[in-house]
Amino acid sequence: MKNKPAIILVSPQLGENIGAAARVMLNFGIDDLRLVTPRDGWPNPKAVDMAKGAKKVIENARVFESLADATFDINHLYATTARTRDMIKPTLTAKKTAQDIISHSNSGERSAIMFGPERTGLENEHITLAEAITYIPVAPEYTSLNLAQAVSITCYEWFSAGDDTPEQIVDIGNLKQASKEELAHLFKHLESELDNTDFFKLPDKRPKMVNNIRNIFSRANLTDQEVRTLRGIIRSLVTKH
Amino acid sequence: MKNKPAIILVSPQLGENIGAAARVMLNFGIDDLRLVTPRDGWPNPKAVDMAKGAKKVIENARVFESLADATFDINHLYATTARTRDMIKPTLTAKKTAQDIISHSNSGERSAIMFGPERTGLENEHITLAEAITYIPVAPEYTSLNLAQAVSITCYEWFSAGDDTPEQIVDIGNLKQASKEELAHLFKHLESELDNTDFFKLPDKRPKMVNNIRNIFSRANLTDQEVRTLRGIIRSLVTKH
Repeated sequence: MKNKPAIILVSPQLGENIGAAARVMLNFGIDDLRLVTPRDGWPNPKAVDMAKGAKKVIENARVFESLADATFDINHLYATTARTRDMIKPTLTAKKTAQDIISHSNSGERSAIMFGPERTGLENEHITLAEAITYIPVAPEYTSLNLAQAVSITCYEWFSAGDDTPEQIVDIGNLKQASKEELAHLFKHLESELDNTDFFKLPDKRPKMVNNIRNIFSRANLTDQEVRTLRGIIRSLVTKH
Repeated sequence: MKNKPAIILVSPQLGENIGAAARVMLNFGIDDLRLVTPRDGWPNPKAVDMAKGAKKVIENARVFESLADATFDINHLYATTARTRDMIKPTLTAKKTAQDIISHSNSGERSAIMFGPERTGLENEHITLAEAITYIPVAPEYTSLNLAQAVSITCYEWFSAGDDTPEQIVDIGNLKQASKEELAHLFKHLESELDNTDFFKLPDKRPKMVNNIRNIFSRANLTDQEVRTLRGIIRSLVTKH
């Protein structure tokens, strides 16, 4: 198993945000939550409430007196901040941070991403201890990202970086994609009934109209069942007619 | 200006989640919020509280009686759902959805992403009206994503797809990266003082130790100011010695 990153909340203020962060951590497969001097003490019932199905992340959260204590086993520390700091340190996007964390993990090294208190963000004395700043690209119009949302994006990027979900799938279950022969029968059936009902009024327009109609159904990637349904529809309409 | 996607919340239950969704929409530059039959009516003071600096998204939100009404001007509709549905429809990741929305926008077409109520998610009758399902990859251990977090990820992917933030930057402000000559002087200074204090006890180990020390400072990408600081440190240590 790869080393997952730890999430460190430095002086978080609201239990609700700690709970929401725990929940979304587990959504993205991360469960090592560390708290440095949470404002309202610990444990915090509001954190438990908001964590919903991720209560174990809250129960297993560790509380530390200082950032140095909280990072005792961490090789790579990232400081999440929205503001540009007057500090000489690489600034990485959340996506690049995730890639670096996975690469460190492949070398057997442990990483942590830290977040500051809601109102002020991380202090410079904390950022100094990080090897890089992690930046979540936001719209300049409104850059104030909720704490749990910031945790969410960074955890999402970490999970996505190691995830092989195909970007697009079409699952037709036990059904079969219609064969081109079945489609050809459908087209022949439909066009012959349209000829019968004089749908193609102008013979020289017929080829173009036929192409347009065939395109509609070709584009739809029909299953064999759907082809049968459409042929039933045609039969039904013809009968009523 | 490109067409931004609309966010449609179908029968949302908690005002807090509507407010949190509005806030994170604006974080990622999206402001067209549409509500279909919100459970607790509208306006909802809890939504305003949670929206923080994004109150205008709440104030400008439009309420509709049906999904059909809410999508009156939408060309491409995406249904966000965690569960696999027994439905023959393409399933796209949030990232692929974002890319498709931008591509539609480049053709002048409008897209919307819809989300179901917290407890149950979207009904099949709503999903049927979408051209594709949008899927946020989550850990199988705990797949229940909070509504506002789901809105967050999809909006983040849309913003990121159109964002050109470099994945890594180092901003040294008005300072200058140290020249290789300044570094060479630093190395010479340090190594000569180390020779004076007999740091390199074994002469045949000296070349390797020198290389290791030079690597430490080469890796640090020092500014010219930092080189001066380090040379001051060496002078200071030598004096005390």
